[in-house]
Amino acid sequence: MIQPVILCGGYGTRLWPLSRPNRPKAFLKLLGERTLFQQALDRVADPAHFAQPIVVAGRDHANLVAEQAVLHSLIVEPEARDTAPAIALAAARLSPETVLLVCPSDHYIADREAFLRGVASAETLAAEGWLVCFGVNPDRAETGYGYIELGDSLRQGNRIARFVEKPDADTARSYVARGDFVWNAGIFVLRAGDYLSELEKQRPEMARWVRLAVDGGHEDRGAFHPAVQEFCAIEGESVDYAVMENTQRAAVVSADMGWTDVGNWDALRTARTADGKRKVVSAGNAELIDCRGVMIESDGPRVSAVGLRDVTIVVDGDEVLVVAHGSASNVAKLRGIKGE
Amino acid sequence: MIQPVILCGGYGTRLWPLSRPNRPKAFLKLLGERTLFQQALDRVADPAHFAQPIVVAGRDHANLVAEQAVLHSLIVEPEARDTAPAIALAAARLSPETVLLVCPSDHYIADREAFLRGVASAETLAAEGWLVCFGVNPDRAETGYGYIELGDSLRQGNRIARFVEKPDADTARSYVARGDFVWNAGIFVLRAGDYLSELEKQRPEMARWVRLAVDGGHEDRGAFHPAVQEFCAIEGESVDYAVMENTQRAAVVSADMGWTDVGNWDALRTARTADGKRKVVSAGNAELIDCRGVMIESDGPRVSAVGLRDVTIVVDGDEVLVVAHGSASNVAKLRGIKGE
Repeated sequence: MIQPVILCGGYGTRLWPLSRPNRPKAFLKLLGERTLFQQALDRVADPAHFAQPIVVAGRDHANLVAEQAVLHSLIVEPEARDTAPAIALAAARLSPETVLLVCPSDHYIADREAFLRGVASAETLAAEGWLVCFGVNPDRAETGYGYIELGDSLRQGNRIARFVEKPDADTARSYVARGDFVWNAGIFVLRAGDYLSELEKQRPEMARWVRLAVDGGHEDRGAFHPAVQEFCAIEGESVDYAVMENTQRAAVVSADMGWTDVGNWDALRTARTADGKRKVVSAGNAELIDCRGVMIESDGPRVSAVGLRDVTIVVDGDEVLVVAHGSASNVAKLRGIKGE
Repeated sequence: MIQPVILCGGYGTRLWPLSRPNRPKAFLKLLGERTLFQQALDRVADPAHFAQPIVVAGRDHANLVAEQAVLHSLIVEPEARDTAPAIALAAARLSPETVLLVCPSDHYIADREAFLRGVASAETLAAEGWLVCFGVNPDRAETGYGYIELGDSLRQGNRIARFVEKPDADTARSYVARGDFVWNAGIFVLRAGDYLSELEKQRPEMARWVRLAVDGGHEDRGAFHPAVQEFCAIEGESVDYAVMENTQRAAVVSADMGWTDVGNWDALRTARTADGKRKVVSAGNAELIDCRGVMIESDGPRVSAVGLRDVTIVVDGDEVLVVAHGSASNVAKLRGIKGE
């Protein structure tokens, strides 16, 4: 029995203006009729293999979690401290031999069966004491992702030779050409006890504050609240930096599961047009004349597009975004995102 | 003393969604702090040369005329019947020797002095019994305009050899290359009596209905209302088709006056960037990153544009238009314009 841990810590505005601090992309219906968060739960809904999931969310998003999901237990973070402490909060409240499946709530996985096969492989490795990452074979020289170099083969995967975070374009191209690099999908399978002892070794201070935060925490209407002061004393860090890059027991399982982090408007468009047919995709009230490669999202106003190539148009409340394909990463530079 | 006649008959939606049937482009501040209609009045405001203007407007726009202008007399058309009857309404109420300067209310003229010099030349010709068009030297092979082929020279201009309405691109290019074609700017200088007698000759039925409409009309709060049934019996036609193309007394005066009909979003952008410096122009709340040749109009919502080239973005009420430069004429094809 695997224990899913769904991380909802993001305040992401990478799909701004659709995603905003009080409405992160995990809670939006971006691909399909269920939100990304709901789909993350759906993937681990089989009670024959998975325990009822633990959701770790920020205080500001606990209401969204409650609106969108019923069967789960909730841990509420008083402040965001990145993924290493979030996983530790869940692990510290479970028996050491519990195998955790840690998943982001705001990624998209097209092929659930491939995902579940990857989980099965990773579970075998985790049972042997490996801390297992999910890797995705790169199909382009993406510079926005973390890369993992495959090391020695294991029965169900590989040891991890090294991590490379967001390489430049030339480096990324060489990785894709070499074929022994995979993207880090941010999904982890590991035993609670292995994780905590590794955290104790690599980040003893963090491990101590997590213990104190859990010991001083309380249950309130079905949700667990760690002690605020102790939790906030933690210096936030990702599980990759704090644990995976330092441990000798890091392994990776590759899964060709149609994964994307939906990290910007280009990524969403790519995911939506993955079937290669829908060159134009629109949600909401839209009319297009002589357009190619145009994506439209509107929460109300009609959007009329004429003669456009490779542009995304988003209308949300009092914000209108028009962004050329290939420029999506520059959306983050807008002052508007910061509410200025 | 010249009698200006300002025609406000347009229900144009060529700058939709900014211009709409109840708010034609004449009444918008598109270029400068005064609306196009106000600028048309401003150009003939010198009482040493011009009588108080007569404004001919549709019933739906009489309120806009009243809001935007004080000194004028108004003729209210119960329904739109194009320009030939509109001019006739004004002419029929003036002495035959009055020289009319007929101007559209929704064009833009950058160089007022050049316009006034053209008017002076045309006035001389009109006093000799010519019906005078204003011509503009073409600077590109525009296919959306009417062209006038210059005929024999007159003292102040030329006879008109022929009119060509909206030629195809190849034809337009040959006209521009030849140098003896000008655009028809839709501005006319002619004596009231000459116009009416020519109308009587070319379109006797129209002339008769106009007479009856004027005879049966009435004044109400400073505005003249032609008799509804009689006016509506007129078959609408432009002054070009009904009179100018048929008369033997058609002349043209060329004026290099920075004229545009502001007939679509491309034309507006061209006029706004005429100084060659402002590659990006925006009105309202906008933020641009890595954009070139982008024009933004918003009546409220913030527009964020990222990585765009040669695109116009218009936000107005519940409508958003995004149109590529060069595609502006296709805006007319949108169902949205028709209110569908």
